[in-house]
Amino acid sequence: MAERGNLIVGQSGGPTAVINRSVVGIVREALKHSGIDKILGACNGITGILKEKFVDLRSVNEDQLDQMAELSGAALGSCRHKPSEEDCERVFEVFRKHGVHYFFYIGGNDSALAASIVNRIARDRNYELRIFHVPKTIDNDLLVTDHCPGFGSAGRYVALTFLGNDLDNQALPGIKIDIVMGRQAGWLTTTAALASEREGDGPHLLYFPEHPKSLAQIIADIEAVYRKYGRALVAISEGILGPDEQEIVQSNAIREEAEKLVGKVFVEWLDKFGEVMDAGGGSKKDAFGHVQLSGTGILADFISLVVKAALNPKFGGKLRMRADTLGYAQRSFAGCVSKPDAREAYEVGRRAVRYAMSGDIDGSVVINRIESGDKYRVEYSLAKLSEVAAGTKDVPAEFFNSAGNGVTQACRDYLAPLIGPLPKRARLSK
Amino acid sequence: MAERGNLIVGQSGGPTAVINRSVVGIVREALKHSGIDKILGACNGITGILKEKFVDLRSVNEDQLDQMAELSGAALGSCRHKPSEEDCERVFEVFRKHGVHYFFYIGGNDSALAASIVNRIARDRNYELRIFHVPKTIDNDLLVTDHCPGFGSAGRYVALTFLGNDLDNQALPGIKIDIVMGRQAGWLTTTAALASEREGDGPHLLYFPEHPKSLAQIIADIEAVYRKYGRALVAISEGILGPDEQEIVQSNAIREEAEKLVGKVFVEWLDKFGEVMDAGGGSKKDAFGHVQLSGTGILADFISLVVKAALNPKFGGKLRMRADTLGYAQRSFAGCVSKPDAREAYEVGRRAVRYAMSGDIDGSVVINRIESGDKYRVEYSLAKLSEVAAGTKDVPAEFFNSAGNGVTQACRDYLAPLIGPLPKRARLSK
Repeated sequence: MAERGNLIVGQSGGPTAVINRSVVGIVREALKHSGIDKILGACNGITGILKEKFVDLRSVNEDQLDQMAELSGAALGSCRHKPSEEDCERVFEVFRKHGVHYFFYIGGNDSALAASIVNRIARDRNYELRIFHVPKTIDNDLLVTDHCPGFGSAGRYVALTFLGNDLDNQALPGIKIDIVMGRQAGWLTTTAALASEREGDGPHLLYFPEHPKSLAQIIADIEAVYRKYGRALVAISEGILGPDEQEIVQSNAIREEAEKLVGKVFVEWLDKFGEVMDAGGGSKKDAFGHVQLSGTGILADFISLVVKAALNPKFGGKLRMRADTLGYAQRSFAGCVSKPDAREAYEVGRRAVRYAMSGDIDGSVVINRIESGDKYRVEYSLAKLSEVAAGTKDVPAEFFNSAGNGVTQACRDYLAPLIGPLPKRARLSK
Repeated sequence: MAERGNLIVGQSGGPTAVINRSVVGIVREALKHSGIDKILGACNGITGILKEKFVDLRSVNEDQLDQMAELSGAALGSCRHKPSEEDCERVFEVFRKHGVHYFFYIGGNDSALAASIVNRIARDRNYELRIFHVPKTIDNDLLVTDHCPGFGSAGRYVALTFLGNDLDNQALPGIKIDIVMGRQAGWLTTTAALASEREGDGPHLLYFPEHPKSLAQIIADIEAVYRKYGRALVAISEGILGPDEQEIVQSNAIREEAEKLVGKVFVEWLDKFGEVMDAGGGSKKDAFGHVQLSGTGILADFISLVVKAALNPKFGGKLRMRADTLGYAQRSFAGCVSKPDAREAYEVGRRAVRYAMSGDIDGSVVINRIESGDKYRVEYSLAKLSEVAAGTKDVPAEFFNSAGNGVTQACRDYLAPLIGPLPKRARLSK
């Protein structure tokens, strides 16, 4: 039997379209258990606990809970703070002071790590704390679980953006490049592939951090697609690397190549961009001393202008070239949720409370895929906090095609049930 | 009684989320009239007519019509070609050759102009042609009509993006700038305002081409909002102008100001960007000889980095600053349609055919708002092609607040029924 006491739930890291559903799942389940007294939300995650800033979730009415669940963002506020050992000590003290015996932390692997440290402290002090990590990340990179709540909805947004961009590009043909979130792994970029139903549909090329590329290779790929279909839609992970495995807009290999292929001015432009970032303050430098240019529109502009400069002369100077950097809407657009993702985000919250109330002391909620395809079905279990905290999950090598510029059927089969069914394209015979 | 004959429908200009509904409205209505023989779609608008490239729409089955209506893009293909007098002569010849007596052209004011020229030629030759312009543009700038099919869905996408970005920014506070489509007018940027339900909600500031601004003014506005709310969400039209009424990234006034406020490197960066655009080929120059930088990420990067450089020292160098350029998804996202917009886009197509079959010879279909608010209701009528072709409609002056950095209640009342109801925000008392 669990100790009678108060409950705290917190949200951490980048918001998603469904992270509030996990909060609501936790609250609605907690309301059923008489052993739980106060139900508190930590304002801005662990930083709110450190400052003892809470919101009373027991008093929130049903309509408000429904509205919270419906919307993206992180209703309790979030944080990017990776707590130190001292912070975790302080968190424990706050818990003891407020009679908190249940803690649910919704976030990525840093959140699982924080939970596991607080957990250890509580055990050392013989304080009964039931502490659970509730998975959340559009990056889909948590260990153990089949996939992460938040990823399906972000992937659905990306797939629908690419579907729309492809239909647009069919209507007014040209080369279109879209930069997709994902600094460390290509997970989210893989979802763009679902927009393509069959040969000839875009996106025609996908590039991932896992497969470093030279400019020459990218240009050659795009030229081949453009010659074949008269157009090209290209998805590029923001974390794409050059041949020296450095981010493209930082890479010395890419700079040398750009200077040779399209002129020194492209390199001077990157350097000038670095100077401007520096003038803005707070810029970071990479191993080469280049100012880091991530989080700007430079990657889309750089690749599209290099490709245009390289290919335009071959096509009579009339290449129609556009590039977009898909932005924060990928994780926050207020009108795009994958139904299975929405359901699972709620469920991981609800299950966490049930685990806590039925004898489990700690853990991270795991989604296990039991059946895929049309019969897609999952079950839930618990992993050790330390297992989930230990690192991140890569995209399996067999999800990429051999050229490293597309995905395999195995990848599509994995993704499809997470993103949910997409609208079918009409096919007019012209 | 109309002449028995064939029908052609074409799509022109930038695709929208609902332009295919107008095609389907035309086809379904045309199928009811025995005086219409072939129902042809012109591939890529007027360019398809010039090349006699058509698709048979009578043979398209119901499922395909439904799927076409559901999706964004322009299923027949579109074009950016503004036809010359000679082109229009040739179009008429093609019509005569193919026995076409009904022509429906879905597009903006250039399409209305093309229709009116072909119309004049047909009259001169005593050839009976029933020719109708079916309105379409996310820019909402057609004359006579209350609003344009396509605008409501694009506006809904923009409003949902801002709602999501605002919830995200509430969870992880900082300054967020989003660039919205609209080179000539601020129509689409006004829709961002609907994301804000009440004081304190973002977007907190909106900037429009209609209200030129200095960098100092933008920076001062953002600083004031940031001091008040600890965060700021800002919507900026891509067509925003500097004090000299030139596009901001081209403006000499802005360059002088940037050099003074944040350093010469910002101006050198813009110049370097111009050199790179030039190297890509096909660049255009403005009156000052600057290469035009539109269609890139530079506006978002320039404004956000200027604001950061100016304000960061005042906030301990810890300003969290992000900027996105909302891209083609604004007109093409495959999962966001305003219901009234979808209905009206279908209806303007259907009505055009009914006008053609019931005695009207030519015209542009007009949407008249009969009631607004919850009882929103429209009726349809016809305007002269020449009236609609004559120019573009400005955002009324009374839709902007006196500071030119926000909208009035009159504007919100105009927009709300076009965009459709938005999800309500949950309000937790913290």
